[in-house]
Amino acid sequence: MEKIDHIGIAVNNLEEKITYYTETLGLKLLRIEEVPSQNVRVAFLDAGNVHIELLEPLSEDGAIYNHIQKRGEGIQHVAFKVGNIEEKMSELKEKGVRILSEQPVPGAGGSKAAFIHPKDSFGVLYELYEKSGKGE
Amino acid sequence: MEKIDHIGIAVNNLEEKITYYTETLGLKLLRIEEVPSQNVRVAFLDAGNVHIELLEPLSEDGAIYNHIQKRGEGIQHVAFKVGNIEEKMSELKEKGVRILSEQPVPGAGGSKAAFIHPKDSFGVLYELYEKSGKGE
Repeated sequence: MEKIDHIGIAVNNLEEKITYYTETLGLKLLRIEEVPSQNVRVAFLDAGNVHIELLEPLSEDGAIYNHIQKRGEGIQHVAFKVGNIEEKMSELKEKGVRILSEQPVPGAGGSKAAFIHPKDSFGVLYELYEKSGKGE
Repeated sequence: MEKIDHIGIAVNNLEEKITYYTETLGLKLLRIEEVPSQNVRVAFLDAGNVHIELLEPLSEDGAIYNHIQKRGEGIQHVAFKVGNIEEKMSELKEKGVRILSEQPVPGAGGSKAAFIHPKDSFGVLYELYEKSGKGE
């Protein structure tokens, strides 16, 4: 794991939360985009050394919608930046860690993502996150 | 807010989790200490740009014990590093944000800490964290 790339937070509605993060906490909004593969619209905020990713469900379906239904709004995952996601997935599987998908899935900004089974991380959902070559 | 200092994770037992974070995920253990004012024993791990703070309750009392009882093990808070915690508390209060204590409380490593009411941050417990002069 190279570092923490971002903290993912499930929210009902992006706009109200963006106002809080920018005007009250003073963070900078970097961009908003849709990630159809994960059925969410996301806003990235700059917290200095880490991004905060606010995730709004696009419909009543998917991991973010389910998180809000079960646990309310709040932190949904923490993403580790990795150099080569396939290698890291293999290495973890060899150590007995369960990964939630056989292959990486497309994430925001052309990235590749995979998740460690939260039971293996004692209740924390860790994402492995390989950025695209776009310098995101 | 200068940056994210650490992510605080509530755990039942430090030792089992430290093994996972160091041997499986490959993070470095920085130190273990007791924080009697918060009724916890904590382990700090180096995740590159951010620390991961594992918090084990010292007794059946306090915020970490209550978190585990209510929500199970998992992420309990995210800490923003601030330069002057009293100034930041005043600034946020003027913006209508509730802080959980009138004064900062002593945290790990001689730091000072205060928490934003999690309802004001839409389900996320943010800590304001002023490090001691010891370069922690």
